[in-house]
Amino acid sequence: MRLATLTSGGDCPGLNAVIRGIVRTANTEYSSTVVGYLDGWVGLMEDRRVDLYDDAYIDSILLRGGTILGTGRLHPDKFKAGIDTIKANLDDAGIDALIAIGGEGTLKGAKWLSDNGIPVVGVPKTIDNDVAATDYTFGFDTAVSVATDAIDRLHTTAESHNRILIVEVMGRHVGWIALHAGMAGGAHYTVIPEEPFDIADICKAMERRFQMGEKYGIIVVAEGAIPKEGTMDAGLGEEDEFGHKTFTGMGQIIADEIKERLGYDVRTTVLGHIQRGGTPTAYDRVLATRYGVHAARAAHEGHFDTCVALHGEDIELVPLETAVAHLKQVPEGRYQTAKSMFG
Amino acid sequence: MRLATLTSGGDCPGLNAVIRGIVRTANTEYSSTVVGYLDGWVGLMEDRRVDLYDDAYIDSILLRGGTILGTGRLHPDKFKAGIDTIKANLDDAGIDALIAIGGEGTLKGAKWLSDNGIPVVGVPKTIDNDVAATDYTFGFDTAVSVATDAIDRLHTTAESHNRILIVEVMGRHVGWIALHAGMAGGAHYTVIPEEPFDIADICKAMERRFQMGEKYGIIVVAEGAIPKEGTMDAGLGEEDEFGHKTFTGMGQIIADEIKERLGYDVRTTVLGHIQRGGTPTAYDRVLATRYGVHAARAAHEGHFDTCVALHGEDIELVPLETAVAHLKQVPEGRYQTAKSMFG
Amino acid sequence: MRLATLTSGGDCPGLNAVIRGIVRTANTEYSSTVVGYLDGWVGLMEDRRVDLYDDAYIDSILLRGGTILGTGRLHPDKFKAGIDTIKANLDDAGIDALIAIGGEGTLKGAKWLSDNGIPVVGVPKTIDNDVAATDYTFGFDTAVSVATDAIDRLHTTAESHNRILIVEVMGRHVGWIALHAGMAGGAHYTVIPEEPFDIADICKAMERRFQMGEKYGIIVVAEGAIPKEGTMDAGLGEEDEFGHKTFTGMGQIIADEIKERLGYDVRTTVLGHIQRGGTPTAYDRVLATRYGVHAARAAHEGHFDTCVALHGEDIELVPLETAVAHLKQVPEGRYQTAKSMFG
Amino acid sequence: MRLATLTSGGDCPGLNAVIRGIVRTANTEYSSTVVGYLDGWVGLMEDRRVDLYDDAYIDSILLRGGTILGTGRLHPDKFKAGIDTIKANLDDAGIDALIAIGGEGTLKGAKWLSDNGIPVVGVPKTIDNDVAATDYTFGFDTAVSVATDAIDRLHTTAESHNRILIVEVMGRHVGWIALHAGMAGGAHYTVIPEEPFDIADICKAMERRFQMGEKYGIIVVAEGAIPKEGTMDAGLGEEDEFGHKTFTGMGQIIADEIKERLGYDVRTTVLGHIQRGGTPTAYDRVLATRYGVHAARAAHEGHFDTCVALHGEDIELVPLETAVAHLKQVPEGRYQTAKSMFG
Repeated sequence: MRLATLTSGGDCPGLNAVIRGIVRTANTEYSSTVVGYLDGWVGLMEDRRVDLYDDAYIDSILLRGGTILGTGRLHPDKFKAGIDTIKANLDDAGIDALIAIGGEGTLKGAKWLSDNGIPVVGVPKTIDNDVAATDYTFGFDTAVSVATDAIDRLHTTAESHNRILIVEVMGRHVGWIALHAGMAGGAHYTVIPEEPFDIADICKAMERRFQMGEKYGIIVVAEGAIPKEGTMDAGLGEEDEFGHKTFTGMGQIIADEIKERLGYDVRTTVLGHIQRGGTPTAYDRVLATRYGVHAARAAHEGHFDTCVALHGEDIELVPLETAVAHLKQVPEGRYQTAKSMFG
Repeated sequence: MRLATLTSGGDCPGLNAVIRGIVRTANTEYSSTVVGYLDGWVGLMEDRRVDLYDDAYIDSILLRGGTILGTGRLHPDKFKAGIDTIKANLDDAGIDALIAIGGEGTLKGAKWLSDNGIPVVGVPKTIDNDVAATDYTFGFDTAVSVATDAIDRLHTTAESHNRILIVEVMGRHVGWIALHAGMAGGAHYTVIPEEPFDIADICKAMERRFQMGEKYGIIVVAEGAIPKEGTMDAGLGEEDEFGHKTFTGMGQIIADEIKERLGYDVRTTVLGHIQRGGTPTAYDRVLATRYGVHAARAAHEGHFDTCVALHGEDIELVPLETAVAHLKQVPEGRYQTAKSMFG
Repeated sequence: MRLATLTSGGDCPGLNAVIRGIVRTANTEYSSTVVGYLDGWVGLMEDRRVDLYDDAYIDSILLRGGTILGTGRLHPDKFKAGIDTIKANLDDAGIDALIAIGGEGTLKGAKWLSDNGIPVVGVPKTIDNDVAATDYTFGFDTAVSVATDAIDRLHTTAESHNRILIVEVMGRHVGWIALHAGMAGGAHYTVIPEEPFDIADICKAMERRFQMGEKYGIIVVAEGAIPKEGTMDAGLGEEDEFGHKTFTGMGQIIADEIKERLGYDVRTTVLGHIQRGGTPTAYDRVLATRYGVHAARAAHEGHFDTCVALHGEDIELVPLETAVAHLKQVPEGRYQTAKSMFG
Repeated sequence: MRLATLTSGGDCPGLNAVIRGIVRTANTEYSSTVVGYLDGWVGLMEDRRVDLYDDAYIDSILLRGGTILGTGRLHPDKFKAGIDTIKANLDDAGIDALIAIGGEGTLKGAKWLSDNGIPVVGVPKTIDNDVAATDYTFGFDTAVSVATDAIDRLHTTAESHNRILIVEVMGRHVGWIALHAGMAGGAHYTVIPEEPFDIADICKAMERRFQMGEKYGIIVVAEGAIPKEGTMDAGLGEEDEFGHKTFTGMGQIIADEIKERLGYDVRTTVLGHIQRGGTPTAYDRVLATRYGVHAARAAHEGHFDTCVALHGEDIELVPLETAVAHLKQVPEGRYQTAKSMFG
């Protein structure tokens, strides 16, 4: 058998571990060969590819962030218009099955290819942990760990200066990174997109801390946080592709408002790209490797139109369709648990 | 309501996060008070305890390894003989419910107290991840991370010296730490207690590497690894409390045998206590905090004779009995997946 | 003897290690007592202080970032006007000598107290490593390590996305952090305040990389970087207290200009406060501890009007005056060595 | 010009950073080419070599532990007997100068080659920091950091179990790693080879801790520690090449003796190879890079029979002879400073 794989969308620690898992399993369990298309769907359209061998190089990528295949973005219309080229390219290269590693957009593309007769297996990838079909996605644990390390460092500097520190983390549509990093880092308040915040509540929480003799506060803010209607002026914002209002620099907006209302010294740190780069945690390496092994097995066993997913301790296959059905948001109960740790 | 809690058995990163979760939830959600018994069951017997307040000190223990309550071991017979003392102590202190945090032995003790009329909730604690009732236990991710960091470091030194390196990790009865650390660390062979090893297989794997031009090998060995009957002389070993044969220094025993058979330079590193100490990973802090919150809620809602457990993404309550029913071993399929990554 | 100590100015990993070093040495070597004034000079003026004992608490602060004494800022005029209050407070508390831990401003204050008859020993503290009298200052190694970790993570994400990434690090007047983090992180260009940059040179270096087949670039920018006169429009900037022009958000300014000139995707990460918070590196713990020991010895031996300093492997005493004589900038030769590693 | 380089002796984090520094400087500053001999002197004798280009591969090795050139050991007699082969090999390969990176033995070999007319520059490499001619050697900071991380983890586990923990670190002839890791890790006692220990002193220190209410102790032991004559029976030991007595497993020997004398629970952790493997710290990357740059410059400027060395903040050249003149031991004053932090 001859497999192809590609990585698409934003990069995420663990992508290389998936690729390694696929290549080794194809080689060890099935004596198959694997081809990697470069720069996501773009490389598939332009027939840019490399052969992937089970050698020392593939062995060494386990620890490496990013993706050795590169990634890219292609507009869905262009993608769909190129279906004949894609089929021809896969045919010419003698590909029997395609494993697509990517986020929501990529898996939708994979589903569309599958509907058009191409044998596809999907591997969900999102640093945001917002894929409903799986308990966790690789990259998420690394992002949470990096954010938590940063928060750990910020506690002492905030305390020494009697200061409120806002830490803006990733999460435009969901608050999973903020929720976990806030809980792991002992934040005194965490704001997530799922529950519009009332700035008065945040201020009240900070004031209570200072009244009880504490000298500082740490607030974790998901970049997609939005104020509750009518509670504060955060500018006009913009509408995103889901019709949600979004704001840029929400950490700083909140900082300015707290400073204005309470008069405290408030500073903002935007963690940015360091959350998605670098060596994956042990957790993510294991999860990504298992995804790769099971995706390769699914392809060899003919279980197409599926996506690998973590359920409890097991990797299972779910219909590709369900993997992209809806965004997995932080449920109210989980946020309630986090809230009990504030303050 | 007035809660009591204690930690018993070997220490484990995340114990303090559980305690913090209990204290804060009792305080925030129920306005209850919490008492901590010192040094496990011993302190309960001797009525040594401290009041735990939801203050800056409790807030600060989230990051701290070990347990602020101390831990200890008490022989089951002495424990059972002391039931009247225990009841009297709990009565005198006005305790309405007890949350016992510990491993298999501790949870068995908790079950026995529950059967004797004491309102008990259990929190499973084992660095080895061998509790069947829960997907994962806190401390395990930290142990795997520490072991993986060590293996990462050993790759380059082994490679520079054309050497085989054995890394002995924890796991006397189960191979979870070895399995995950071996997979995350890119080990070329991993030996677990669940599957007795044939030294000839290990040697063959190493020779194949060297024949393919590789210059080194990393082998992860769970401390409880045992040779397949009749394949090599590993000394007499001893019988443990489960009737299993165990050996001390299995890493070194394997190293000596490989050296003898293949003539390569083989060295052993025993990771030891660093696997169970220090700051918990973000993953373990979140899991432990959630355990604490849910255990406190269970106690307040009167759900006694239960144990908190992670199922998928949710913390649920299981009967205390099932938590100690049997040891969760590495299933054959999981080890098979690991094997596909060897080499 | 009765010592007093205080920490003043911005916080810095290692401050607590110095305090611990002072307290233990005073206790172990001289059986003296130590008092800590809170919030820097402010606490000295307001006579807010705590007794510091050589106990488990002091032992535990070695690893802790920030300063247990708090820090603060006091205008030099107010400080000088309060000299009688300061003298009275020290007298009333029975203080024989004061150890002032702080940066340039603090040491100038210490010198002025010394000139006014107060027995003072200084300990230099600056994350920026800009004190001329000492080879290195504690906190610097930690800041460089944090920045280097971040750069390590950014390499793979930049590479996966064919992107130029700007990393803005601390250093308003000197480029030591940028120089070391850039060299340790394998940056492809590093910009420091000491040498005004020509944006055309940076663009040329990036283009050369892309022409040679590289797909990304990492540029480290000290926050105090300034453009060479007439090479680009960076806005008006402001004049700082030394009469230097400074700009806010120089990383973003450079990013915009490169994007404009070359058309590449350029992103900026501002590391911010994480560089000065959290657990100090082993290097900084050793240096800070030794500073504390030697400062306590200097005070006991009557070597006042001095400052501890690292020269080669030794801690020596230098006149307090020389410690604040001038800013230690990155010499041209050092920057030349860094440049040979660009590209 | 055409340079050659090789790495010899035990591996050490930073070796690759030196190689990268040499190759880039040769290329950038002098447009020269560089050849790397494989496996140390052995490869030079057997004419096994590779061309080293200033490319993406060389750029990527900065972070990598070990040495891409491999290392090996060759008996001095064989080495000297091969002088004609060495000369012929260097001639045939058109080598103008050799940069030898290695420890005491390697530098002695380099000196001998230099005395025999080969243009040589040395780069000192020792994880033990025992080269007298330089303030610090690369690899040392990484080893100390790894050991300190381990000690940090051991504190909480020792404390939770009321236990004394012995941590055996590297250092057969000198105690630098033990001294620094013990000071950075807050050890309660540190034993170094330079000062034979009296077991009674160690026991006394531990008892004092327990009497003051502490519940645990951490003791750092350099592997080359030796008991003071007549104070305890540590077995016969062996004589090393310097005529010093050495013992294997000194950590365990001390643990057994303390247990015997005090009756406490005492455990031992031997850190082993993890101290010399893996990614170098930022400090070591900078030092190693600068060594590489300056060694390449020395070779091009004709400053042969020299060795690069760190003096204060500067890299300087010292006569190769002085680099191997004597072992740099921990001076009594430094150990005294460490002692003031015990307890």
